[in-house]
Amino acid sequence: MDGIPLATDLYELTMAQSYWEHGMTGEATFSLFVRSLPRGRGYLVAAGLQDALDYLQSLRFTSRDIDYLRRTGIFADAFLEYLEGLQFTGEVWAVPEGTIIFPQEPFLEVTGPLLEAQIAETYLINQVHLQTVIATKASRCVVAAKGRVLVDFSFRRTHGLDAGLKVARACYLVGFAATSNVLAGHRYGIPIAGTMAHSYIMAFPSELEAFRAFVSSFPERSILLIDTYDTVQGARIAAQVGQELKARGLRLQGVRLDSGDLLDLSKKVRDILDAAGLKDALIFASGGLDEHEIASLIEAGAPIDAFGVGTKMGVSADAPWLDMAYKLVSYEGRPVLKRSLGKATLPGPKQVFRLFGPDGLMAGDILALRGEEVTTGEPLLTKFMEGGRMVCPYPTLEELRNRFQENFARLPQEYKDLNAPASYPVQLSPSLQQLQATLAAKT
Amino acid sequence: MDGIPLATDLYELTMAQSYWEHGMTGEATFSLFVRSLPRGRGYLVAAGLQDALDYLQSLRFTSRDIDYLRRTGIFADAFLEYLEGLQFTGEVWAVPEGTIIFPQEPFLEVTGPLLEAQIAETYLINQVHLQTVIATKASRCVVAAKGRVLVDFSFRRTHGLDAGLKVARACYLVGFAATSNVLAGHRYGIPIAGTMAHSYIMAFPSELEAFRAFVSSFPERSILLIDTYDTVQGARIAAQVGQELKARGLRLQGVRLDSGDLLDLSKKVRDILDAAGLKDALIFASGGLDEHEIASLIEAGAPIDAFGVGTKMGVSADAPWLDMAYKLVSYEGRPVLKRSLGKATLPGPKQVFRLFGPDGLMAGDILALRGEEVTTGEPLLTKFMEGGRMVCPYPTLEELRNRFQENFARLPQEYKDLNAPASYPVQLSPSLQQLQATLAAKT
Repeated sequence: MDGIPLATDLYELTMAQSYWEHGMTGEATFSLFVRSLPRGRGYLVAAGLQDALDYLQSLRFTSRDIDYLRRTGIFADAFLEYLEGLQFTGEVWAVPEGTIIFPQEPFLEVTGPLLEAQIAETYLINQVHLQTVIATKASRCVVAAKGRVLVDFSFRRTHGLDAGLKVARACYLVGFAATSNVLAGHRYGIPIAGTMAHSYIMAFPSELEAFRAFVSSFPERSILLIDTYDTVQGARIAAQVGQELKARGLRLQGVRLDSGDLLDLSKKVRDILDAAGLKDALIFASGGLDEHEIASLIEAGAPIDAFGVGTKMGVSADAPWLDMAYKLVSYEGRPVLKRSLGKATLPGPKQVFRLFGPDGLMAGDILALRGEEVTTGEPLLTKFMEGGRMVCPYPTLEELRNRFQENFARLPQEYKDLNAPASYPVQLSPSLQQLQATLAAKT
Repeated sequence: MDGIPLATDLYELTMAQSYWEHGMTGEATFSLFVRSLPRGRGYLVAAGLQDALDYLQSLRFTSRDIDYLRRTGIFADAFLEYLEGLQFTGEVWAVPEGTIIFPQEPFLEVTGPLLEAQIAETYLINQVHLQTVIATKASRCVVAAKGRVLVDFSFRRTHGLDAGLKVARACYLVGFAATSNVLAGHRYGIPIAGTMAHSYIMAFPSELEAFRAFVSSFPERSILLIDTYDTVQGARIAAQVGQELKARGLRLQGVRLDSGDLLDLSKKVRDILDAAGLKDALIFASGGLDEHEIASLIEAGAPIDAFGVGTKMGVSADAPWLDMAYKLVSYEGRPVLKRSLGKATLPGPKQVFRLFGPDGLMAGDILALRGEEVTTGEPLLTKFMEGGRMVCPYPTLEELRNRFQENFARLPQEYKDLNAPASYPVQLSPSLQQLQATLAAKT
């Protein structure tokens, strides 16, 4: 997107000018983390790092950007000249996307000249926040679906186009099978899927004519929407068309329910399809679904093979935001902290060590200072950038998706509970505790 | 954004192929509306039309888009050739952005060849939905603020970059004074504003040094953040710096509170500033604010001059989505409707007539068929496009902002209540009622 360097809060740039004017060029570390979990959430799934790294690598103000800043009348010309030559030259440690993570633990830490690390704040939070919100929400749908197929149907109600893309990607990261979003398919190589809309049915004189027309266009991939007028009647007509296909050696892929009592209707529809000899026709359900709806349908034995999950996942309706912050934790080698009520921060660059039990499952984390000797546990943050360049290749989306699946299997069930998850133990290392106490005691 | 024509659900394109293959080229009208209001909302503010019109005017598939679609293996080559030459050639009626609107009333209606009107669905909903959600939420903050200055601080937690831009614009549309989002300032000409972050303070050895450094960079526009360590102490230090500025004939613009008990702290801080002879230094408040917080602070007499409103507005935290639909209402001159449980639609292209009382205030709407003679009331939908081209200039953002302010003043207070708004009367015209009954009775 054109103008990306301007995708920032004004204060990042005014602070930058002031840092520059006052020779505040020392090395700073900022830490991006979440303060607390929304109610009912037991964990977070980190996401958005790919965009964060891409941004830091390509950050350059164009002359058009600088012209706009000059026209605002806010900035000194000498500073704008400096800004035009700016590049990010720092270091980034981060957890790869798909990592399970908890409050206070850093998603990423940026170390570099104060000004460079500061101005990235708004963009980095914007991208990591959205994608983490959605990856977390979507992973709950995966928990609920117990292996059934999930498809992202949220694009029309995601908050804008960028969100539509990032939601599709975050869903796929955590195990959705496909998205309806064609642009996301193009951009990320995610499988795309879709059925048909009510308008298609309504444009034909009858449901039967509509179904026949659609299967003649897509004989191998027709999922017929059967709730436009009356779902049970719609299922009978779909079964008729399915039998016509079968007689030609083809297969009706399935039907979709989008309204009404999905448990009751899915049973009735299954019976109709089975009685018509269409046991391999899938039942696809959609319409206001979230993890709770999916869980209760499956719990009740609804014969639904696949779920189209839309709005409530795509905006994370019950928890559309996280208290995510990007805070200065050290400047010129001096660890710092903020004491604002309810928003206090932990000082210093950090590392997270993850402990596993004898069963291979996650057993607790230790939040430590970076470089501190912690003999047990697996470190979660990796160095991705140094001197403004990538020092290791970033994993592909397929690799991240596989990685997530492996990691998520090691998170005990009690933290995945959809309503009352257990609280995962995160301890501060002795050195971090001591540093915090020392700094907090200073006036 | 590159690839915009692909910003659609797959089914729009598969249906398009099927329409094309079956000669379904008749004229269709789709109507975009909201089914119901979220709890606690008394009205909606329509927004997003500018993007909808821009999209329809510029919709062209590039050869790169077509190449991707070909590679999916889903589409027929002949259809893709047709798609490459596609343009929107239809008509659009709509309410201008900033119009107060209610459930079932159309925001816009698109009439054109079925295929053209169909494939626009996903993009049109995506943009109008987000912007209406936010314009509505932001207007509630305006109601709560009773004339105090509001600034959009939400960019870091909006759902992606596109949302950041559209949120900034929607806020400005309904009366916010400025945004922190520099890119939105550039894109839309919206005033930009900002203060400073805690990291700025923490990078200096002391608050006093930080404040002095900032005012030396921006002597005319410094709003000092005073809650990094202790707000009352921070206020005293800010007052000292304010007096130093005053001695040089300059003025401290203000201070910002971002945590703690904003009512109590704002009073203490006001006293400190006043006692230091800084009566014209403003108090700016931020930190998790929404319309309810703002209303209760003002109700309680908090001496706060301006509010920075962030996350809860920027994601519309209590109601992040609307049940917005884009439904076929007529095909080849035949009005149609859908009967799905809980999702039934009203048939035919429509017009909304707004009635005003003798006091000039809004008194109720009549939802009628387009072209129907309704002798009272002011029609809300205007024809913006015909033959795929604009037939009247679209208003500027400043004009829309002024228009909103005038219209909003005519909405009686009872519908603006933040907790339990009255239900605004929308009647169906006799002809619409009769048409609905006739069609619903058909099996």
